[in-house]
Amino acid sequence: MKTRTGNFFEDFRIGTRYAHATPRTLTDGDAALYIALTGARHVLHSSRPVAHGLGYRDRTLDDMLVFNVAFGKTVPDISLNAVANLGYAEMLFLAPCHPGDTLRAKSEVIGLRETSNGKAGVVYVRSNAFNQDNHRVLTWVRWVMVQKQDPSAPAPTPQVPELKSFVPPEELVVPAGLHAAKFETESTGSNALWDHYEVGERIDHPGGMTLDESDHTLATKLYQNTARVHFDALAMKDTTFGRRLVYGGHVISVCRALSYDGLENVLSIAAVNGGTHANPTFAGDTLYAYTEVRDKWTLPGRDDIGALRLRLIGLKNQAPATVVAAQEPDGKYRPEVVLDFDYTVLMPRKI
Amino acid sequence: MKTRTGNFFEDFRIGTRYAHATPRTLTDGDAALYIALTGARHVLHSSRPVAHGLGYRDRTLDDMLVFNVAFGKTVPDISLNAVANLGYAEMLFLAPCHPGDTLRAKSEVIGLRETSNGKAGVVYVRSNAFNQDNHRVLTWVRWVMVQKQDPSAPAPTPQVPELKSFVPPEELVVPAGLHAAKFETESTGSNALWDHYEVGERIDHPGGMTLDESDHTLATKLYQNTARVHFDALAMKDTTFGRRLVYGGHVISVCRALSYDGLENVLSIAAVNGGTHANPTFAGDTLYAYTEVRDKWTLPGRDDIGALRLRLIGLKNQAPATVVAAQEPDGKYRPEVVLDFDYTVLMPRKI
Amino acid sequence: MKTRTGNFFEDFRIGTRYAHATPRTLTDGDAALYIALTGARHVLHSSRPVAHGLGYRDRTLDDMLVFNVAFGKTVPDISLNAVANLGYAEMLFLAPCHPGDTLRAKSEVIGLRETSNGKAGVVYVRSNAFNQDNHRVLTWVRWVMVQKQDPSAPAPTPQVPELKSFVPPEELVVPAGLHAAKFETESTGSNALWDHYEVGERIDHPGGMTLDESDHTLATKLYQNTARVHFDALAMKDTTFGRRLVYGGHVISVCRALSYDGLENVLSIAAVNGGTHANPTFAGDTLYAYTEVRDKWTLPGRDDIGALRLRLIGLKNQAPATVVAAQEPDGKYRPEVVLDFDYTVLMPRKI
Repeated sequence: MKTRTGNFFEDFRIGTRYAHATPRTLTDGDAALYIALTGARHVLHSSRPVAHGLGYRDRTLDDMLVFNVAFGKTVPDISLNAVANLGYAEMLFLAPCHPGDTLRAKSEVIGLRETSNGKAGVVYVRSNAFNQDNHRVLTWVRWVMVQKQDPSAPAPTPQVPELKSFVPPEELVVPAGLHAAKFETESTGSNALWDHYEVGERIDHPGGMTLDESDHTLATKLYQNTARVHFDALAMKDTTFGRRLVYGGHVISVCRALSYDGLENVLSIAAVNGGTHANPTFAGDTLYAYTEVRDKWTLPGRDDIGALRLRLIGLKNQAPATVVAAQEPDGKYRPEVVLDFDYTVLMPRKI
Repeated sequence: MKTRTGNFFEDFRIGTRYAHATPRTLTDGDAALYIALTGARHVLHSSRPVAHGLGYRDRTLDDMLVFNVAFGKTVPDISLNAVANLGYAEMLFLAPCHPGDTLRAKSEVIGLRETSNGKAGVVYVRSNAFNQDNHRVLTWVRWVMVQKQDPSAPAPTPQVPELKSFVPPEELVVPAGLHAAKFETESTGSNALWDHYEVGERIDHPGGMTLDESDHTLATKLYQNTARVHFDALAMKDTTFGRRLVYGGHVISVCRALSYDGLENVLSIAAVNGGTHANPTFAGDTLYAYTEVRDKWTLPGRDDIGALRLRLIGLKNQAPATVVAAQEPDGKYRPEVVLDFDYTVLMPRKI
Repeated sequence: MKTRTGNFFEDFRIGTRYAHATPRTLTDGDAALYIALTGARHVLHSSRPVAHGLGYRDRTLDDMLVFNVAFGKTVPDISLNAVANLGYAEMLFLAPCHPGDTLRAKSEVIGLRETSNGKAGVVYVRSNAFNQDNHRVLTWVRWVMVQKQDPSAPAPTPQVPELKSFVPPEELVVPAGLHAAKFETESTGSNALWDHYEVGERIDHPGGMTLDESDHTLATKLYQNTARVHFDALAMKDTTFGRRLVYGGHVISVCRALSYDGLENVLSIAAVNGGTHANPTFAGDTLYAYTEVRDKWTLPGRDDIGALRLRLIGLKNQAPATVVAAQEPDGKYRPEVVLDFDYTVLMPRKI
């Protein structure tokens, strides 16, 4: 067989390592497309002079562009037969990526647990993305529900990795060379710096963005993500969804772009502590977002930069003002919630 | 409040200056996207060797790409609460932009006039766009109807700037280094040069282009224009339009791209004398265009280049052949007219 | 008349040469868009380090991006009044193209044959594309049915060129500098090399891709192809199709991208032996593809590279597994077949 059907649950073994295919050079072309596809405006990705002024050699690629491309590499080996992408943890951005950099990705199976009905199982993988100089730029854990091909295949000994509930501030990496003392808020339009955010504060982002079939499929193809559910409307007709599903990583990208209004001075994502795609998103849905400030930390040896731990809630077809909480008292997500994304950003401090 | 709701009419004062946020590095990626989004074919933006041959250091970015990005910068401060973008005047292209250049924009309020019903007012601003070397590349005046937040806020003393009905030829800037003596019409496919156009002549452009939701929203996001009316279909449901509105600058871009057939040898836009978005455009509309030659001028000290003043009429869902005039005898625009754009271009002369 | 209506059948003469307009610089921006529009993953176009490792100076532009842009240049002179694009032959890729290269195209009429009803005729042209250094990078023959403007215009003496049924292996050009001995299959995810493919083998590609209006029109505008049938939904309403037609070259691009799964180690297209757009494709159609291996050849003096002659069948709205043959016994294409594309690729050999 020349074509591969992807791994099923019973094909995975703890410790198996995958070097994923199709290394990808990301360029100014991808940066422009990312802006067109998401409306992203964060200044380090938008302006080369601002990036130079803060100590970078060039504009950085948007962190979520880097993540989505690196994630896409892992799909053919890990999640071609996935039923659902269950979560992310311990994601750390280790070095900025710039136009011209080439990404490749590797993964290792670190956990397996068959579901109680024996038809599928949860696979935990730690993935790493590397640039052309073999420097690791991104690491993350995700777990995904994968179908069994043969329901009678024996269940593996369950092994579930212990994952941190969040990346502690001492593990965060401030990009080498970054000096934010000269940061000018004129470039972002907001004077709100790290010092002005308070734990418990909630920010309702004012924008809304309606998704259409062409834009989410263009984004997902840009990431070279090949999961069939996003592209093949005919095959999706016979599923419970009845139509193409928007790739969750694109939902994160759009919600994060919406979060610019109210979080203008975020320089970069340092870590993702956890993420849940609470409900599916389809073309025609209008996305909104709000952010809760979960924690704030100073960083050792830095008085120019601080870290904020944020919870980004993505909503569909309902504006933030009308949504008091993402979850019901029993923890169940409300039907309008599409994303619960817990991440940590770097932001300049008041000097 | 971390999120900003934009300025309302009563917030504007004559003389207030805004340094707009989010400087934007434009690259080959934006140039490629602009071609994909509009079908643009003007040769200075399409071919680096042709640009070199005429004295430029690289391909130029399409003038309307530059304008749309610079315009987008002004939206959060000027027109987030706009009811309608009423007009443009005195727009001058002062220096070409190339891939790699970074644009930022500033504006100053130069006029204010409350409407008679006291619910809104017209704000006149002069905006300027600068590149990374702090050279001014573009200047323009626009006026926009902005809502009042508090209807009881007192009306300012009306002050309306005197605006030129067109940019006189002696103010036009021919890019430094441009020498068109060696221009080869083989690169454009048309032998019609400045000398062959006659004042009063009308050119019906043969193409038509149907807009879809994804392409107009991709364009508007590329320009980092954040006006909600273009993106949020849910919020637009409750407006008189009932759906997302196509950004007027994209309508200009598409109509100008259609105008290539019949105006192949236009090198660049030197000025925009005036512009009106006569009727709204929506996804599903098919755009057509025709051009009237309003005037033609030689330029001092140049026998290689002349200027043409053109009136570009954009139509929706009706081909130019069936449209005798854009306006009714009383000046009212016909319902199929979406754009009345008065601009001045540079074109090589017969040597 | 400033606008041109294109050539009609009676305007063509054997031996007439056209230097087509609008040379086009292709960049990283076009490469990124091509990936977003098609989902292309072939490694020489995706990764600069892999391209360097095989002896190229940079990533190559996808062969079909090069073809579609070169083809687009020929439309205004050759096929603006085409009824149907009938076929391709003797297409040879002579040198790789890289981001930054500028393409222009020339054509010569090499055959004419009026149809029996006298209302149209078939025009055969040989076209060549050149880069900025005036090196020929691509040559091909196509024939196209073109309307007559004046049905009473006399028929030309029929002259039909003799065309090879396929490009013989001794004419294939292996790019200078290409050394595949160090090729690493890790970069593509498949161990199947030239040696593993057998003549007669069929590969059903697992992916499916639904087309939408925005993505096929974006692609066709990117190629600066101006054929009205792809863009003007209003004009198309009155045709037998009733709506916009997807450009055939985009169908080739999408089907070829789908063919990655099962042909991962294809380095480049060396030749196109023939091609037929068997049925029209519209937005909403889901494309699938399968490949038959028609022949395989070693190449003189090369033990690192071999050639495979492939037949790529593009299907709409029907998965390959259910399609036994593209044609009925009488040679007629089945209604679900949109593409029959006979081409020759280069693939590394087992060392």
